[in-house]
Amino acid sequence: MSAATVYGVGVGPGDPELLTIKAANLIRSARVVAFFSKRGKTSNAFAAAERYLNPESERLPLIYPYTVEIAANHPRYVSALREFYADSAAAIVQRLEGGRDVVVLCEGDPLLYGSYLHLHQRLQGAHRCVVVPGITSFAGCAARAGLPLVSTDRVFCIVPGTLPEAELEARLSSGDPAAIIKLGRNFGKVKGVLERLGRAASATFVERGTTASERIVPLPEQLGDASIYFSLILVPAVEARQPEHDGPR
Amino acid sequence: MSAATVYGVGVGPGDPELLTIKAANLIRSARVVAFFSKRGKTSNAFAAAERYLNPESERLPLIYPYTVEIAANHPRYVSALREFYADSAAAIVQRLEGGRDVVVLCEGDPLLYGSYLHLHQRLQGAHRCVVVPGITSFAGCAARAGLPLVSTDRVFCIVPGTLPEAELEARLSSGDPAAIIKLGRNFGKVKGVLERLGRAASATFVERGTTASERIVPLPEQLGDASIYFSLILVPAVEARQPEHDGPR
Repeated sequence: MSAATVYGVGVGPGDPELLTIKAANLIRSARVVAFFSKRGKTSNAFAAAERYLNPESERLPLIYPYTVEIAANHPRYVSALREFYADSAAAIVQRLEGGRDVVVLCEGDPLLYGSYLHLHQRLQGAHRCVVVPGITSFAGCAARAGLPLVSTDRVFCIVPGTLPEAELEARLSSGDPAAIIKLGRNFGKVKGVLERLGRAASATFVERGTTASERIVPLPEQLGDASIYFSLILVPAVEARQPEHDGPR
Repeated sequence: MSAATVYGVGVGPGDPELLTIKAANLIRSARVVAFFSKRGKTSNAFAAAERYLNPESERLPLIYPYTVEIAANHPRYVSALREFYADSAAAIVQRLEGGRDVVVLCEGDPLLYGSYLHLHQRLQGAHRCVVVPGITSFAGCAARAGLPLVSTDRVFCIVPGTLPEAELEARLSSGDPAAIIKLGRNFGKVKGVLERLGRAASATFVERGTTASERIVPLPEQLGDASIYFSLILVPAVEARQPEHDGPR
């Protein structure tokens, strides 16, 4: 095991003030700062963390393979991604073996649907991995919207919009509150399911929540191209149980 | 609407460095800092925030009614709690009407199972309420344990151990990863369900995660009295799908 450490650091949903004290301190002192990015686009994680970066530190962008023309489940996309994560891990290992700690910036929380998970999987065991949690997108968006997420003995689920329609419907039919993520091309399908379940009218759509270009609205007719990635839907509980039962125990 | 603002401020799972920059700044400048507490016990939220408090600010403890002898669903407990939340809101309104902002310290995230929700409900509309999100307990605990929470197109649920046994079993039978909270007296029931579903052996128990007295272990035989409130169980996914599909879109 090398002496150096890789830090998976959650930078939260976008607002630079929503980094934790611990995250900001680690980013300030890091000699190498890695971040996932799409080619030609600003990394959201980098934008949230930028003000804390040491000007002397090395920036290590990890640029996703350009594959917009291939379906996400196509073997060629899958193998391109596998190679990308292996290369990214190797670039980090090179720094660790040179005795330099590496901070990996992660949107939201590193362990919740994050690309960092692919690095963690590959580095854990052979290298010291430390994770710093981040504010999740759904908590950041709910705070900005002033919307309760869940109380009492209700279950709260984070539901990816990538699920097949029938599974999506089954998951959302319980009436429990939920956050629906990974909308993009799945928005129409998700909206249809919410409408059939009578939950569309109470849902809130949040785009780029906590950033300067934040937008909080009822469910729109459809998503523009700019809304494909950084958005989610908050669905409140159906006929909430009596919240007065919710004591300290 | 009074000119002053009530801030529901998430202070995270316990480690004082897991407050956000925004939360620490608000606490530093607050003239009134309110926090929920049990009689005779240190408030966990207060302990996490203490180092950021202005020595000049007013401390406003909101002390839960002492009701350990009554069942949580007993009408007398319910009405005692309702009165308590109404009194707490009134104490805050008094400060707001005097022109002083009030910061309410909240363990974890204010909108996720928090007592703050009861104040938000009562104050919203008549007063300006601003919520600052916090690191949730499950994200803090997973980070310390180095355990992935969820990836790809799996659903992630937060499940209260207070649910009836059959509902608990139904919710946990999907094989999706979950965090089980509100253990306390429900620990034996929760453990039994996980054992029946063959998910007990892979589960991790975290007590006072991110604090100095943190304990991360496999599921214990039973809970000691000290473990009743500030603990949770992380249950990983059953036969995770191929994570390589999890790209940037």
